[in-house]
This record gives sequence, structure tokens and C-alpha cells, in this order.
Amino acid sequence: MDDSLDVVVLAAGKGMRMRSHRPKVLHSLAGLPLLEHVLRTAFSLSPQRVVVVVGHGGDAVRAAFAERGVMFVDQGEPRGTGHAVLAAREAVAAGTFLVLPGDVPLVPPEALRALVRFHRERNATVSFLTMEPAAPGPYGRVVRGEDGKPLRIVEAGDATPEERAVRELNSGIWCLENAPAVWEALGGLSTANVKGELYLTDLVARFAEEGTAAALPWPDADDLLGVNDRADLALLERLVRERILTAWMRDGVTVTDPSAVYPSLDAAVGEDTVLHPGTHLLGRTVIGPGCTVGPNAYLIDSRVGEEAQVWYSVVEGAEVGPEARIGPYAHLRPGSRIGRGAKVGNFVEVKAATLGDGVKAGHLAYIGDAEVGAGANIGAGAITCNFQPGRREKFRTEVGPRAFIGSNVSLVAPVRIGEGAVVGAGSVITHDVPPYALALGRAREAVTPGWARPAEEGGHA
Amino acid sequence: MDDSLDVVVLAAGKGMRMRSHRPKVLHSLAGLPLLEHVLRTAFSLSPQRVVVVVGHGGDAVRAAFAERGVMFVDQGEPRGTGHAVLAAREAVAAGTFLVLPGDVPLVPPEALRALVRFHRERNATVSFLTMEPAAPGPYGRVVRGEDGKPLRIVEAGDATPEERAVRELNSGIWCLENAPAVWEALGGLSTANVKGELYLTDLVARFAEEGTAAALPWPDADDLLGVNDRADLALLERLVRERILTAWMRDGVTVTDPSAVYPSLDAAVGEDTVLHPGTHLLGRTVIGPGCTVGPNAYLIDSRVGEEAQVWYSVVEGAEVGPEARIGPYAHLRPGSRIGRGAKVGNFVEVKAATLGDGVKAGHLAYIGDAEVGAGANIGAGAITCNFQPGRREKFRTEVGPRAFIGSNVSLVAPVRIGEGAVVGAGSVITHDVPPYALALGRAREAVTPGWARPAEEGGHA
Amino acid sequence: MDDSLDVVVLAAGKGMRMRSHRPKVLHSLAGLPLLEHVLRTAFSLSPQRVVVVVGHGGDAVRAAFAERGVMFVDQGEPRGTGHAVLAAREAVAAGTFLVLPGDVPLVPPEALRALVRFHRERNATVSFLTMEPAAPGPYGRVVRGEDGKPLRIVEAGDATPEERAVRELNSGIWCLENAPAVWEALGGLSTANVKGELYLTDLVARFAEEGTAAALPWPDADDLLGVNDRADLALLERLVRERILTAWMRDGVTVTDPSAVYPSLDAAVGEDTVLHPGTHLLGRTVIGPGCTVGPNAYLIDSRVGEEAQVWYSVVEGAEVGPEARIGPYAHLRPGSRIGRGAKVGNFVEVKAATLGDGVKAGHLAYIGDAEVGAGANIGAGAITCNFQPGRREKFRTEVGPRAFIGSNVSLVAPVRIGEGAVVGAGSVITHDVPPYALALGRAREAVTPGWARPAEEGGHA
Repeated sequence: MDDSLDVVVLAAGKGMRMRSHRPKVLHSLAGLPLLEHVLRTAFSLSPQRVVVVVGHGGDAVRAAFAERGVMFVDQGEPRGTGHAVLAAREAVAAGTFLVLPGDVPLVPPEALRALVRFHRERNATVSFLTMEPAAPGPYGRVVRGEDGKPLRIVEAGDATPEERAVRELNSGIWCLENAPAVWEALGGLSTANVKGELYLTDLVARFAEEGTAAALPWPDADDLLGVNDRADLALLERLVRERILTAWMRDGVTVTDPSAVYPSLDAAVGEDTVLHPGTHLLGRTVIGPGCTVGPNAYLIDSRVGEEAQVWYSVVEGAEVGPEARIGPYAHLRPGSRIGRGAKVGNFVEVKAATLGDGVKAGHLAYIGDAEVGAGANIGAGAITCNFQPGRREKFRTEVGPRAFIGSNVSLVAPVRIGEGAVVGAGSVITHDVPPYALALGRAREAVTPGWARPAEEGGHA
Repeated sequence: MDDSLDVVVLAAGKGMRMRSHRPKVLHSLAGLPLLEHVLRTAFSLSPQRVVVVVGHGGDAVRAAFAERGVMFVDQGEPRGTGHAVLAAREAVAAGTFLVLPGDVPLVPPEALRALVRFHRERNATVSFLTMEPAAPGPYGRVVRGEDGKPLRIVEAGDATPEERAVRELNSGIWCLENAPAVWEALGGLSTANVKGELYLTDLVARFAEEGTAAALPWPDADDLLGVNDRADLALLERLVRERILTAWMRDGVTVTDPSAVYPSLDAAVGEDTVLHPGTHLLGRTVIGPGCTVGPNAYLIDSRVGEEAQVWYSVVEGAEVGPEARIGPYAHLRPGSRIGRGAKVGNFVEVKAATLGDGVKAGHLAYIGDAEVGAGANIGAGAITCNFQPGRREKFRTEVGPRAFIGSNVSLVAPVRIGEGAVVGAGSVITHDVPPYALALGRAREAVTPGWARPAEEGGHA
Repeated sequence: MDDSLDVVVLAAGKGMRMRSHRPKVLHSLAGLPLLEHVLRTAFSLSPQRVVVVVGHGGDAVRAAFAERGVMFVDQGEPRGTGHAVLAAREAVAAGTFLVLPGDVPLVPPEALRALVRFHRERNATVSFLTMEPAAPGPYGRVVRGEDGKPLRIVEAGDATPEERAVRELNSGIWCLENAPAVWEALGGLSTANVKGELYLTDLVARFAEEGTAAALPWPDADDLLGVNDRADLALLERLVRERILTAWMRDGVTVTDPSAVYPSLDAAVGEDTVLHPGTHLLGRTVIGPGCTVGPNAYLIDSRVGEEAQVWYSVVEGAEVGPEARIGPYAHLRPGSRIGRGAKVGNFVEVKAATLGDGVKAGHLAYIGDAEVGAGANIGAGAITCNFQPGRREKFRTEVGPRAFIGSNVSLVAPVRIGEGAVVGAGSVITHDVPPYALALGRAREAVTPGWARPAEEGGHA
């Protein structure tokens, strides 16, 4: 832990331009709330404390991050960034603290480390990162003096035409000394600006006078982009995806169309795996080496062993063994464990069930709350009836190794099919079947000749 | 209505470069024919008349727009844009008329209003919109005199190298006076050009002489792009999608990948709804607020209530209630009405059926021509047999509230299952079941021990 | 055949930056190995011999292309491009030979023809193609003398800053004389460079002295891009897709979103067919005119007749007749033949089965190893039981024309259903059914009144 450093995250903004009922920092980017991205960066610095300033929707933010090990402080009435930092005064303990906007999610830890190092080398009281994005947007312009030191930051709304033309912009990422002069300056900031708010940016002019304001340009403006509206969110989604996929490709993953693969930050993919378009690898999904995933595979919080294939399928909270084949059009729900070389084919759903090595469930089946032994064959249209009206609990089905369940069979749980047993097509099985037995539950076929007329009239099927 | 204005739409072109059997203006853009886009813009001006000049494939165009409230005139043999306008002479009634190409679909009404206003302010006889696209393509070059007034338009094929270098291009959108001089000029146009056609563009030189030709630059060339080939069509598809999605994002919709969401102009989406990649919202689809749609959801002419979820599903002409869950791999066909909080899960098809609030149809079911009461449970593999051989009509199935239909059940319509009744797995139900009754249609299970041998030889299932 | 020309393909590189267990030239681009792309170009010149120099993973490369009609030579220890060409000395027979890198897959035959022509016109001993890509990357810089002739090529790693600034780069595509001077020069090349390898590029300085080195700029650098890592592979995938789709659009195919359609080089599509996003047309798939394919259709090695529709489906090695309707959520597996106007609907799988004209299989069915006559109707949940435990062979099902198979029926093969016969819902059919007969295999329905209580407790379904 770095005892000398705290981090204050500003998460109080309403984000009017999001047009949302949800606080801005709870909007999702690559499957995680914006604030989670910022907190991950904050914690990567091992600070003494992470303080989150909340305001609009504060209860929702507190609830969403209650277990995250941060201190919350309430800004009360929102009166600008300076006011927000002032709200954190009692919470800050370390001698130096970073201020991070809660809506700037892609900041690399290196940028913050560079800022802290720069801040300390310059013995600065106030320092901040600057950037030169292609489009200046609503960011404050950095006005530097002849000696190159920052003189002041001018908000876009208050800027003169010349100031507007400045390309170096304030990123909103600050490093401040926890010093009385800073808090006093924050308390005494002017509200004589377009919005009538206390701007953190006004600190620059204040400490520029005594030569302790400093500004560090960061080369990649994309790292410091903020989210002001849903278009920004879409842009950052694309950037995050590109960054993850570029890293994966560098590590030996083939991505046939990087514009159509949707990875999470917490997912991992093995060497020589191929990701086809329409693949979503969400949550903590881990794909082994040599797999083929996609087209159109959606996996969340799942593990896939080496050399497996998953395509045109939805896989949630499941484990797929090596060399297994999933899809097209399979749905593995939470608690599914699919053995090595097993096959779950089209229109098959598995839920809370274990399928042993080499099990085949190729067609139109539902396997829920079940244990299926190695090498068993689940016929087309076979269904485990795990649910009974009026009962809350789900009942379990056991199918022994190498058993054969015929087409359109209903296995009414609780029920056990023994090893190597065979259940004939169309049977409803309500009692256990011993190993190597044949079970049939089927009406005799009755034929009425000449019933259907060639002209195709009448008849009831 | 603006009695002083008519609109003439040129829809006679064959569009050779489309390489199509279909008239160019009937090609679809964002789900609507090109001509429909143009007519919407035309009608937004409330003109006295909209005249459509048809030629190649004219019957198909007339048929497709028979109910659209426009006048059709036939160009006969195609002899250029001037000839096409001349064909509309008898149909034009107002003192001023716009000429719109039928293959320029994205023109904003503001552009036309600006042109009419400009035309009238200048007391022009002939005026037109100009543009500066990044690539000049086949458009005519606008040659202006020293006073800045247009002198003539030179077709790309007839242009000198200097003229080809001109960046201001004719958009093909005109405002003309309904005056004898105009019609006479059109009748007297030269055909002494590369293609031997009557060019509307030659009017400029004619009226430039008397100072009544005028040209209004329009800033956004994308607004005036025309469709000459399928590549243009693909480009305009992308532009339309971007415009719709940008507006939706501004209104509070999250679009995680705008490059992979396909909206129609007539669709609408509520605040805080999230659209995932592979989402198609076609026709008059309306999505409520707070929904999650996609990945891979295809909805056409459907309505989805607030806080619902639709993913990996196809929904056509259906209504989905609030908080309902559809998918993955569900198919709702026309006439499906899904109640509040109901669940239609994987491999379930619904057609012309009403599912009450809280109904669960989670797996491998077909529910057609049916009424399912609130809270009923449709088991995996349950099927309503609505079709009988030799009968044209479909028969209806009624399932009472809180009834429980077991797995692999066939309900042979017409049939009624009473409130709270239970139908056992694998049953074929051909007679009504009273409320709270248990119905079973199932053969007794017969077991033959030792039938299947451990060596896995022989056996018939 | 051009007796005067051989082609040597360099396929020995490990491709360290691919981070792969597989030889680089076996990595797939648009569904074909990189080397296959190069060999297609090579064979398009009708050379006397095509020689492939292998090294790392040579056995895998030889195995993959054993039937391709090329000569393999082994480079042994990899010591640079010059060393690789030297390994082919005994194999080269023609007077002139091209050297092609095995990882540069998009070279158009015209470029090679232009190089050979240029080489011969100049009476060159050594000539090569050059390019000016936007980013120079790792390619060698071409240094030309005052007379414009190439003096030498400087590898990026050995280049001075001025040389690095040269924009004309070596493409790695060579034309060489099969002359003792060339082989001697190759044998005597220096290894005094950064990597200690024999550089083919050093030939230029050698033959520049006698004025027989020549360099031909090729205008489109994209044609000559090589694959060094997975990011390159993704970039080339996109280029190949764009090229194929651009050609298709020019030929009258509508592609609503070219960024989301995945064509193979060997696929073909008819006029006025529309390809929607998420369409994959792989292998030798041929789509007729006037079809609608996609969204989300995956076809490989399949044929689709005119005016058919395939959407949200997977089609492998199948034939789909004219005006047929496939999907959403159908899966046609190899050996499926679907007749004119037939319909294979949602959650239906077909395998090694012929469905006659107008057959309807609309819902939740599995049809495998079957012959279904024209106009037959396969009910929802109907399944052909083609597999029997312990038997290797699959048994066949025959369904006569206009027969009607009810819902949830199991047809236990081998079995024949006669023309116009009707099989009642839920039946298990193990014996043949005569034409126009009604077959039922169904238990009588038994009802227990008052079994389920309104309070929804107890009960077993």
C-alpha cells in the first residue's frame, strides 16, 4: 500500500445528456459500470484510501459498490467539481491525493503513476493531466505562460475565441496536496462563471501565482476520454473492444472480424483459438487453446476446454470439456458441465446437469437437474421432467453410462436409468430402469385402412 | 397545403448499374423503397400535387404506390431528365414545382424548403441545389460566372478537364417555374451531347442569359447522395442507420455497437433501453423504456413493453408485455400476445396465441392458435396440434389459468384444459379436461431385464 | 503452360509473431490456408513447375498440400530468404522463375504478369515489385540511383534514418533468371546483417553493378500486404471480404451491410439476391437469383435455388430448392435436399434426407436418413428415429407424398408411411403404414377429477 496517496473519485454527476434514470457512473461499459473501471484503476495504485463522492443517485451508487472497500462521502447539492472535492476533505488522509472523474473509464494506471511522479518531482501543489484529442469537445483549455507553466484553465463555456483554439485540454484528472492552502482555495473559489459552480480548474490560476501548478501532457487522448452521452459510451465500447482484441491477437488468438467480437476485460482466450464474428465472451469466461468459437456464440462466466467448438449457441455459467462440440443452437444454462468430447447439438438445452465424457445430446432435448453418465445417448426430443406442479424443488434424473434414451422420451424425475439401459422412443418413464434393461412405455400401433382419402378431405390426427 | 407548390419525382430510370430486374426506385433502403423515402420528403412540404414520372418498370412502380395519393405520368421512351420533366407538363398545376430524383432518398425537407425560399427570393425561373461531395462521381459540374451566378452545368461525360476539376456539383434537385418559357425551353433542349438525351441541366444556360438561373449550395453532401449502384445503396444504408441511431442515443438509448444495430425509420425505442449487436428493429416496431434487446434480436412490426428482454429471437407482428423474457431462440409469429412477466424460452414458437401474465413456456414448445391463461405452465416439448389433415381452418386450444401441461404433451385442438388442471407428461389430449383434474394418456411402462448387453450390440429402441 | 516460367513459393517461415503451433502458411484467410491463396495465383500463370520451399512445420505443409501438384523442397535450417531460394536450385527448370512469399496472399495475377513482362523487356537478371503502403512496417527500403534504377534494398533493421524515410518498399516478390550467376550470387551472399541471415534482397546490389537489376512499382499496396501477425490476418480478412462483396454488388447483389457479410472466394450469388447482416457464404456455396439470405445465415458448400429464403439458419452441404423457405432456426446438415417451395421452419433439423416439393416441416422436428414425398406435412415435434443402440448403420424412413405426420410422432426406422397416410399425434410407429391409412399409437386419455387443488399443492405430472 502507498500510505502517501489517496484517490478521490467524483461520482456525483447526474449526466443530463445521458437522458437516463440511472446515475451516469452506473452505466455499463464492456459489461462493467463506468465507476468499476475507475475503481480498478484506482486500486491498481494501492492507495491508502479510495473516496467516492456521490450525489445524484447516491443511494444506488452506494448500493452497487457497498462491498468494494471504498469510503463514500455525499456532496449534497451539486455545485461543481471544486465543491465535490471539498466534500471529501475529511475523508482524505494521505499527503497527496488524486482526483479522478467517475466517468473517465479508460485511464491507464501508468498515466496516474506518471502524474504522481511528475507532481512530486515538481513539488507541485496542484497538477493535472492534459491531452490533445482530435475534437476538443467540452473540455477546458489549458493556457500556459511563456515559461511553459500552466497559468489557468478556461472552461469551454467561458473561453474567448483564441482560448477556444488552444488544443491542449484539461483531462479532469488531478493530483493535489492535502494541504490547508488547497482546501482554503477550494472553499474560496469563485462561482462567477457561466454555470455558477465551483470549478476545480480555478485552482490552477490560484497556485500558478506561487509557481506550484503543473500540467503533464499525456500522449494518447483516447485514454482520457470521458462519457458525456450515449454516443461517447458507444465510442468507448469500441475502444475497449479494440484494446482487448489487439492484446489477444498479439498473444496468438485469431479474430476473423475484430469489429464483430465482443470481449470482456475479465475474459481470457488460449493460443490458436479462433473467434468468429458475433462472439461474445462476457464476465469471467475462459476459453482454452485451439478452440473454435462462433459465429454467434454468447458465453458468460463459462469455461471451455482445449480444442472445443462452440457456435451459434448461448452458454451461461457452464463448463465445457475439451474437444466437446456445442451447437449450433444449443443453450447451456448455469450449472451445466459438459464432458470431454461430448456433443450438445441443435435445439438442446442443458441446465444444472452434468453430461459425462462422450455423451451425445444432439437434437431437440431438455436436460435439466440431471446426471448423465459417460457415453450415454440422449435421443431427439428427450426431456427430463424435473418440475412438478405445486412443488418448489426440482427433481433429479440420473442416466447411467452408455444408456440409450430414445426419441421423444419423457423421463419423469426423480428417476434413474441404469447403465447401458435402453428406453424406447416415445416412452414416459416414471419408475427406475435397471442396468441393461429395455424399457418401453408405448401404446400398440393401430391402423385404420382407407381412412384418409386421396382427395385429402376429413381426418383427424 | 401549399397551393403554390407541386413536386415532380423522376422515377423512370432503369438504373443499368443496379444490374437488376427491378426498377431502381423500388429497391429497398432501410426497409422502404427508395421512392417511398422521396415521397415522404415530398409530402412533408404539403404540396398541392405530387407527380411521379414513371418509365422503365412503370407498372411495378404504379402498383407499389397505387394507394400513395400521387399522380403518375408516363415518360414513354426515356430521353433524359429534361424529357422526363416535360412528360409531367399537363400534371403540374401550381406556379412553382420542385423536381426530385427518385433515387436520392435522404434529402431533408429543410433543404427543399431552403431551395424554394431561395428560388422565390431571387425571383428565379430555374434554381437548383449544389453540393461538394468528397468524391465528385458522375454528377454535373456547376460553372459559375464572375458575378457568382451559375452559367451552366456540364455533365461529367461532356466536361473539359478544367470543368471536371470543379468541386461544386449539381445535386439534380430543382425548383422550376410552371411557365411557358420553361416548357418551351425544355421542348427545345439540344440532344447534342454524349448520350443524345434531353438534359434538364441545359435549362441553366438558357435562363442564365436572362439572369433567372440560381444555384444554392447545400452544406452536407451526404444529404444529397444518389443511388447509382448497389455500393451506393450499401453506403446509404449505413448513413441512414447512423442517423437513426444517433438520434436514439441522444434520446437516452444505449447502443453498445452502433455498427451492428439495424433500425427502421418507423421504429421507436424508450429511454434507458439497451440495444445489443445484431438487433434489427424493423417496420413499426416500438420498444418500451428500460428494455434489453439483443444480441441477435429481430423484431418487425412488434411492440415490447417496459423492462422486457428479447434476445436471440425472432419476433414478427407480436406484442410482448412488460417485464416479459423472450429467448434465447424463441420465435414469436404474428398474432402472438405475451403477457406481463411471461417467459418464452428456448426453442419455443408462438403463433396467433395469447399467453397470459406470468405464463411460462420455457422449452421446445409450439403454441399456435391458442389462449393460455395467466400463470399456466407449458412443459418442455408440449405442442398444440392446431392443424388437421384435409381441413383448411386451424383449431383452437384453450389452457386455463395456472394449468400445468407436462412435457411432450400433444393437445389436439379443438380442446380445452381447465383452470388449474394438470396434464401428465407424454399425454395426447383429444378431449377437454375439467378444472383441477389430472389427465393422463400414457402407456404403462414395461421393462425387459437384460435386454441390452453390456457389449452394446443389438437392441432396438 | 508457360514452359519458360517456374514459380518458387517460400513457405518455410515459422512466423514467430503469429504465436501459433501451426506453420504460418497454414493459417486460414477467408476459409483457405494462406498458401492456397498463393498457389492459386501461381497456377493462374500456368508455370512449368511450382516449387514450395518448406521448413518449420514442413510435414504439416506437405500433408495439407500433398495433392496440389507442387514440388516440395526442404530448406533445412532457416537462414533467410536467399538461403530458401538456394534450396530450390535443383527444382527450378525454366529459364525464369518467380519467387513468391507464402504469406502474401492477395497478389493479383496481373501484378505477376506485369513483373515477368517488365523483367523480360529490361533483360533483367533480378527484378522485383515495389509498393508504397501507408505505413512502411518491416519491409525493406528501395534505394534507387540517379538513373532511377534500383541500387540496393536496405532491410528495416539495417537502415539509416534517411533510408528508413524512403517510401518505396520491397514487396518480397521477385523475378529471377535461372542462371549460374544468380545461384553463385545467392551462395555468396553476406550474412553480415542484423539477423545473420542470407537476404535475397542483397541480390539487387550485386546485379545493380552490371545494370540488370530492375524494380517495378505496383500501384495498390494492399495487393502486396503480407501476414506477420494475427492483426495482419484480420486486416487481410477484411480486405478479401470487401473485394468479393464489391464484385458481387457490381454484379447485382444487394448487401445491406458489407461490413457484416462473410463470403468465400469460391462462393457465387445470383442477381437481385439480397444478403442481410450476419450472412456467411462459405466453401463452394452457390446462391441463385432473387433470394433473400440472412440475417444470420451460415451456409457452407450448399446450393440454393432462385427466389428462396434462408434466414437465422445453418446450412451445411445441402441443396435448397427454388422458392423454399428455410428458418428461422433451421439446421440443414450434409445430404439434405429440400424441394421447390418446401418449408423448413423453426427448430427443425434435416440430415441426409430428401424433402420433396412443397413439404412442410415447420416446427421442432428431426428428419434424418429419410425420404419425404412431395406435399407431405411433418408435424411439430415429429422425429425420425434413425439410430438404434448397438448398430452402426442408420436406418431409413420413407414418408409418402401428401402424408401427414402428427405432432410428437416418433417414426422408428426402418419404416414406411404410405402416400396420403395420416399418423396421429404422439404415436410411436414401428411398422409400415399403408397408403391412405390412419395410424394411431396412443394410450386412452384418463381423467382424475379434483386431483389438482386450487391451492396448487401436490400433484405429479
